[in-house]
Amino acid sequence: MIILKLGGSVITRKDATKPTLNPVNLDRIAQEIARANIGKLIIIHGAGSFGHLHARKYEIGSPINSTEELQEKKIGFTLTQNSVKILNHFVCHYLLKYQIPAVAVPPSSFITTENKRIKSANLEIVEKYLEMGLVPVLHGDVVLDTDESIQMAVVSGDQLVNYLSEKLKPERIILSSDVDGIYDRDPKTHSQAQLLEVVNSLEDLKFLEGARTVDVTGGMAGKLAELLELADKGIESEIINADCEGLLESALKGEKVRGTIIRK
Amino acid sequence: MIILKLGGSVITRKDATKPTLNPVNLDRIAQEIARANIGKLIIIHGAGSFGHLHARKYEIGSPINSTEELQEKKIGFTLTQNSVKILNHFVCHYLLKYQIPAVAVPPSSFITTENKRIKSANLEIVEKYLEMGLVPVLHGDVVLDTDESIQMAVVSGDQLVNYLSEKLKPERIILSSDVDGIYDRDPKTHSQAQLLEVVNSLEDLKFLEGARTVDVTGGMAGKLAELLELADKGIESEIINADCEGLLESALKGEKVRGTIIRK
Repeated sequence: MIILKLGGSVITRKDATKPTLNPVNLDRIAQEIARANIGKLIIIHGAGSFGHLHARKYEIGSPINSTEELQEKKIGFTLTQNSVKILNHFVCHYLLKYQIPAVAVPPSSFITTENKRIKSANLEIVEKYLEMGLVPVLHGDVVLDTDESIQMAVVSGDQLVNYLSEKLKPERIILSSDVDGIYDRDPKTHSQAQLLEVVNSLEDLKFLEGARTVDVTGGMAGKLAELLELADKGIESEIINADCEGLLESALKGEKVRGTIIRK
Repeated sequence: MIILKLGGSVITRKDATKPTLNPVNLDRIAQEIARANIGKLIIIHGAGSFGHLHARKYEIGSPINSTEELQEKKIGFTLTQNSVKILNHFVCHYLLKYQIPAVAVPPSSFITTENKRIKSANLEIVEKYLEMGLVPVLHGDVVLDTDESIQMAVVSGDQLVNYLSEKLKPERIILSSDVDGIYDRDPKTHSQAQLLEVVNSLEDLKFLEGARTVDVTGGMAGKLAELLELADKGIESEIINADCEGLLESALKGEKVRGTIIRK
């Protein structure tokens, strides 16, 4: 079984001022996944501009100081959920277009967090879909949090990768992004930035700015933290660039491609 | 707490040849629900033309006779789920437009059936959303079935009303449809058909054709069977016509309106 993350930056216009799909990428990526023809596959997609805009505006996950703030955040929660749902509809639509039997399992309907971290989730239905040969599709979402001070939280696609990988022990974990992988410095500001083939710890980065692209879910630094936690448990993962045509297909087929492997 | 069913015939064009919303009804109904200002509310909507077309074409829930049929049904399952999801997005969109904090909890992510009937479902998240003052929105959906011969099933909004009402003991159960209630005969073919104010059993119907409008989920006869099962357990429900402006609002507010009450 492979767990594949589709980054929000690849399938949406992440810096758009309103939720905006990247249908060209999504169509191509769905074709690449179909051609790779993976037996058992779980897809987790980010929320991109469909989630971050709302989640940031309403500061889902930050402490609630008044009844008014709670009311506001509840509205933000529901708006975010409904926005991410339509992104998920499009993702599934493109997967179905190429005969990938995608079935959505939204985190907000079966996961709760404790201080922003998934404590437990019943993965029985995800496993049943997998057994049937269907492709469960999860995504970055808003969920209820047991911490009274925040009550609601954002669960990133990367945290889902972490949680599901530990529980379901996939053979491989592939995270697709709009960059080639992890650099030792921020490639956008340092021309000498080097792509790291393997990362074992945060110390491999000369500056943490190498993973700077910050979003509500922590950007590349957040992603790396999730993957290093997995690496600590002996679980290896890889980051590749899904903006480059054919790379995802090659990676899914097990070919060696440009990217970063995260392992201990 | 009130459980409100929005019939697929009210919020979609049920006899359309492709999934078609009824945005005018949906907008008005959302306003009526908002004005009724119910403290605790669960909304369950039918799938209408967003679900039935696919479910019927692929005969979800009928016995599977070959590997090819299984493959076909899987595709049908995923297409149905993704289609119903977009209807749910629209329903939530209109509810949110009028500040009803709707949060979707799709059955396919937490319910499985045994020979087409819900055996068990973890309602914890639904209850948590309710406690927080959010409005859980469930809907007719496709789900996995433990019966090896069918593997997949359709769960109608009416079956969800039955199941959730028994488990969560709402004060009231209101089912909105595009007809006034249950008639003793089919009002479309019998000009003398009488609306029944109260129905205690199927015998109240002169002919079962009085509940004839058949769809994949059993139409009015299927609805009545679900509600009579509830009545047998001492749980009363009422059917009203949401096509009539203001009727749903009045019913939600507890006013006496034209319709049919189902009780023992």
